[in-house]
Amino acid sequence: MIVLEDALTLLLNHAPLPCSTTRYPLAECFGRILAEDITSTMDFPPFNRSPLDGYAVQLKDIVHVSPEHPVLLMQIESVPAGSVPCKIVTSGQATRIMTGAKIPEGADAVVRLEDTRLVNDQIEILTADKAATNICSQGEEIRINEKVLTTGTLLEEGALGLLSMLGQANPLVFHKPKIGILATGSELLSPSAPMKLGKIRDSNSYMLLAKTLKAGGEPVLLGHVEDNLSSIITKLSELPDLPVYITTGGASVGDYDLMEKLFQELQIPLLFKGVAMKPGMPVLAGVWKNSLLIALSGNPAAGSVSFEMLISPLIRKITGLRNWNHKKTIVKLCGTFTKTSPTRRFVWARWFMKQGFIFAEPLSHQGNGMLKSALEANALLEIPAHNSPIKDGTELEAILLHL
Amino acid sequence: MIVLEDALTLLLNHAPLPCSTTRYPLAECFGRILAEDITSTMDFPPFNRSPLDGYAVQLKDIVHVSPEHPVLLMQIESVPAGSVPCKIVTSGQATRIMTGAKIPEGADAVVRLEDTRLVNDQIEILTADKAATNICSQGEEIRINEKVLTTGTLLEEGALGLLSMLGQANPLVFHKPKIGILATGSELLSPSAPMKLGKIRDSNSYMLLAKTLKAGGEPVLLGHVEDNLSSIITKLSELPDLPVYITTGGASVGDYDLMEKLFQELQIPLLFKGVAMKPGMPVLAGVWKNSLLIALSGNPAAGSVSFEMLISPLIRKITGLRNWNHKKTIVKLCGTFTKTSPTRRFVWARWFMKQGFIFAEPLSHQGNGMLKSALEANALLEIPAHNSPIKDGTELEAILLHL
Repeated sequence: MIVLEDALTLLLNHAPLPCSTTRYPLAECFGRILAEDITSTMDFPPFNRSPLDGYAVQLKDIVHVSPEHPVLLMQIESVPAGSVPCKIVTSGQATRIMTGAKIPEGADAVVRLEDTRLVNDQIEILTADKAATNICSQGEEIRINEKVLTTGTLLEEGALGLLSMLGQANPLVFHKPKIGILATGSELLSPSAPMKLGKIRDSNSYMLLAKTLKAGGEPVLLGHVEDNLSSIITKLSELPDLPVYITTGGASVGDYDLMEKLFQELQIPLLFKGVAMKPGMPVLAGVWKNSLLIALSGNPAAGSVSFEMLISPLIRKITGLRNWNHKKTIVKLCGTFTKTSPTRRFVWARWFMKQGFIFAEPLSHQGNGMLKSALEANALLEIPAHNSPIKDGTELEAILLHL
Repeated sequence: MIVLEDALTLLLNHAPLPCSTTRYPLAECFGRILAEDITSTMDFPPFNRSPLDGYAVQLKDIVHVSPEHPVLLMQIESVPAGSVPCKIVTSGQATRIMTGAKIPEGADAVVRLEDTRLVNDQIEILTADKAATNICSQGEEIRINEKVLTTGTLLEEGALGLLSMLGQANPLVFHKPKIGILATGSELLSPSAPMKLGKIRDSNSYMLLAKTLKAGGEPVLLGHVEDNLSSIITKLSELPDLPVYITTGGASVGDYDLMEKLFQELQIPLLFKGVAMKPGMPVLAGVWKNSLLIALSGNPAAGSVSFEMLISPLIRKITGLRNWNHKKTIVKLCGTFTKTSPTRRFVWARWFMKQGFIFAEPLSHQGNGMLKSALEANALLEIPAHNSPIKDGTELEAILLHL
């Protein structure tokens, strides 16, 4: 039996790192992890540019204008965005300029179109309000040689926009790690099989497939196998080469709990056996042919907690993600929690915000029927070991899983 | 100019609903939206079953046992999970039973394997602790005819596990709505094009692609088109038939702001023009050939706020998702906010938890360079209209975007 944090450290220390990398077209990079630092090869903006539609002028011409005392300027040029001004603005002149266009030489202010009026052929300037600040300076967003993005960044809207802006049409990203999922148990049927007496359909494989995808891995469903040693060994020998294998079932005590015998038979040295938490205590982990082999309980309530606490952070780490750890915070218990135990416990809960506070309410089905709770659960609430009954409003630690 | 909430209502009222549906293999359903209610055709568990490895016995035989006063029972059968017991347990007898196996007739309690000992051929029962509760009753998880999942559920771990358990190997799901994204602007280059003076690379398309994926839509990048009416009309006439088109650029004031002219030219009646918020005011929306055509500002800071506040909830609604609305909550301002405005404002911010409270810190780059802030941003903080400078710790509303 090992402390949860130590079990995770052992897994991380033996994780097959780092993943290999590849280049993808930018449009296919959403949700992937950047595998290179990105440095800008130029200033952004690359020149002083206008943030709005208006007239580029000399500030000294307009500094005293008001609607009662407007000035008239002569337009010398019109520069759409994407074009470049050719003429130098001198006193008494103005260049019509569009959002994003380069500020012409000689100009040091931009008057908004709304603050001007066309009077015959001349431009009447009605106010100079903020005109001097209506210039985006070269390099004010990003400086040449600035490191803009770093390895391990999750590619979402901000990063994709930046990569595009920086001309990174095919960024280097990590391959998603393939996670094998194998269910053991003679009672298991696939979801498409007709029901038979004494059997149940395998729900663990699909639950863990979803959790693997959420953590950024690529699940590989390996099907299910009967509860006997030679069937499991045969099955394992036929598997593709993957960095991590997760099995469910046969990790607890009893005659048909075969995973420990399997580890012995295949001479896989155990990293650990059993984790000091409830549910999810039965976990066996070892290194098998340079891959991690991790056996979880076949009980969905136990297996799902083991997966969330150990395998999800492991997968996130292997994806190359920089912030791979759990999001922990203090929450207030909503309701009471009367179950006591000498063992540290994790309880599926629903966290919510009320008046700026975070509350977490344990869900009613924790053991059997936990899949129904998993529909609602967005947190795991930690109940410390040797707890007394816990009152409404008590502060506890929780791991937030999603919004 | 229209209030944000009214603009969203107009879009939702004219949204092309509902999406068409299709069946997918369960392993490909993660992240999709269920398009049918799922009712169970059987009880779960389908029979009284054992939650652990042990011996099924008659409670009256063991009710007074203790390690000092054990009882001996005769094993009559051994039932692995997936098999069915054949023999009736009578007084003095025990059936070896595995996790998940059916409780044999006659038995009304299960003693944990750890609380027993093999003594010659007999089973010594050392404690009856909780033995009567070690039975999962037929139907305690799910009753026959119970509605377990409803239309509009996002398919994640709990739902995938339940669908598998219920034998739904090919559930009915909504197609992801295709969202066309077209950037207008003569200054735009694709990310793979070499840089030219006066040009910038299109970052909006990829930012909005990412936001579309996040909202559950399927982005269709339509490229970019020059700032002139006939080019835009030609481009639009060549586009595939999509339920929603988003354009960026040309939605503001000025000569080269062509989208309003486009709406007039194509005789598209406006649903609204301009939304009372900062940034992101320039938005034009109309119904064009049974599709929504929504023109956003080409300014990334403005376009991204318009998208987040209007288009993201629209897409979530069209996907069929039940909980499509923003996650709003009260947060405490971290730092001060000195900018004042007569217009309601949304500020990119980083929310975080400290001692059970939610704080939000506005990010430094809001306008130019906002893509750098978007790397960090996980909330939009709402600054009410006509605000005074706001003090550290003030309670404000925020929309939480992710953890």
